[in-house]
Amino acid sequence: MAQEDVKLLGFLESPFVCRVQIALKFKGVEYTLVAQHLKNKSEELLKYNPVHKKVPVLVHNGRPINESLVIVEYIDEVWKGKSILPAVPYHRALARFWANFIDDELFHAVWRCVFTTNKKEREQNLKKAHKAFQFLEDDLKGKFFGGEEIGFVDIVAIYIAFWVPMMQEIAGLQLFTNEKFPKLYKWSQEFLSHPTIKECLPPRDIFFSYFKRRYEIHLTSAL
Amino acid sequence: MAQEDVKLLGFLESPFVCRVQIALKFKGVEYTLVAQHLKNKSEELLKYNPVHKKVPVLVHNGRPINESLVIVEYIDEVWKGKSILPAVPYHRALARFWANFIDDELFHAVWRCVFTTNKKEREQNLKKAHKAFQFLEDDLKGKFFGGEEIGFVDIVAIYIAFWVPMMQEIAGLQLFTNEKFPKLYKWSQEFLSHPTIKECLPPRDIFFSYFKRRYEIHLTSAL
Repeated sequence: MAQEDVKLLGFLESPFVCRVQIALKFKGVEYTLVAQHLKNKSEELLKYNPVHKKVPVLVHNGRPINESLVIVEYIDEVWKGKSILPAVPYHRALARFWANFIDDELFHAVWRCVFTTNKKEREQNLKKAHKAFQFLEDDLKGKFFGGEEIGFVDIVAIYIAFWVPMMQEIAGLQLFTNEKFPKLYKWSQEFLSHPTIKECLPPRDIFFSYFKRRYEIHLTSAL
Repeated sequence: MAQEDVKLLGFLESPFVCRVQIALKFKGVEYTLVAQHLKNKSEELLKYNPVHKKVPVLVHNGRPINESLVIVEYIDEVWKGKSILPAVPYHRALARFWANFIDDELFHAVWRCVFTTNKKEREQNLKKAHKAFQFLEDDLKGKFFGGEEIGFVDIVAIYIAFWVPMMQEIAGLQLFTNEKFPKLYKWSQEFLSHPTIKECLPPRDIFFSYFKRRYEIHLTSAL
């Protein structure tokens, strides 16, 4: 293959960016991380993602690919090595379904539990989040969502393993615990201690401080 | 291939079901449509889609696949014949991006323009819808989104070609017109007159009456 130019526009605080980093790591792709700012959008970001103006953007030989799920599938299709999506079409369909579910249902419910000062809204979203976690708990059959190996749904679910425990601690919530979802909790521990995943994870203590500060600013501005 | 058992749980009023019908038609797959009711959810639907309890559900040899975009990709992977997604990974990524865009941005904006009695909300969503149509207008380079042949984005965009004109007429809006989006409008006419698409389309007049009644009921209940 000719010389590859792979850039990832992102910021480390984003679970969506982390997914792409894990996928690149799995395939052994070398890349440059072009750090972005959450509020001050760079010209490069606006040029490469004029529709959503959001990270992550993967720029491969000058061509941009947007949206984390789309990017991870792209990485899986372009680079050889360990497969991220299953080979069997039915299992691929299930993986896509659960990946969408995490983004559409679980992510929003958790976000709305954490970043609200409205008691009723929090309670409604706590129920939604609980239901979403339960569906994933029931779906988890093996060591990982991908079976014995880490796959698409595991990578997408990095949000659950790494971000959710931080967010719930900061907001003083009991969303995702070993008592409530023992299989999912065990998965999260196995997943986070996997050598490849460990290498991709940002430092928890720095992140924790960052999110705590953001949360406090949010609470103050919402008063 | 062994005897195939293909069932589609759906109702004809849904653009999401129509996508799946078009994909099956393209591949020449014979199937049974198991009609569902919008409000009275069947036991079969609840069994096969316990998470979202929504149509469409494709049941292939007893195994359910949910969500229209996931189903269309599944159909493309399982059955031979004309390809629905492009062969090149970069083009596949773009197709997935625009398909998601139609569902996440355009669909909701149009829906919220039509089904609101709040003037401010309507205006906000008119702007959003206009912006979304403009992105698609700019993206359309060939005869179809798939180039010279109908592809994934075209099939997903059946909503724009067939549903949006009905909805805007009923609600007295000028969302998607030849004057505003000439390339997209021309695409819609080419697309609707394609022999395969024509065979999949439900009768417009019956549909128009159905949506008009639904819209009137909605307006009455919102007063």
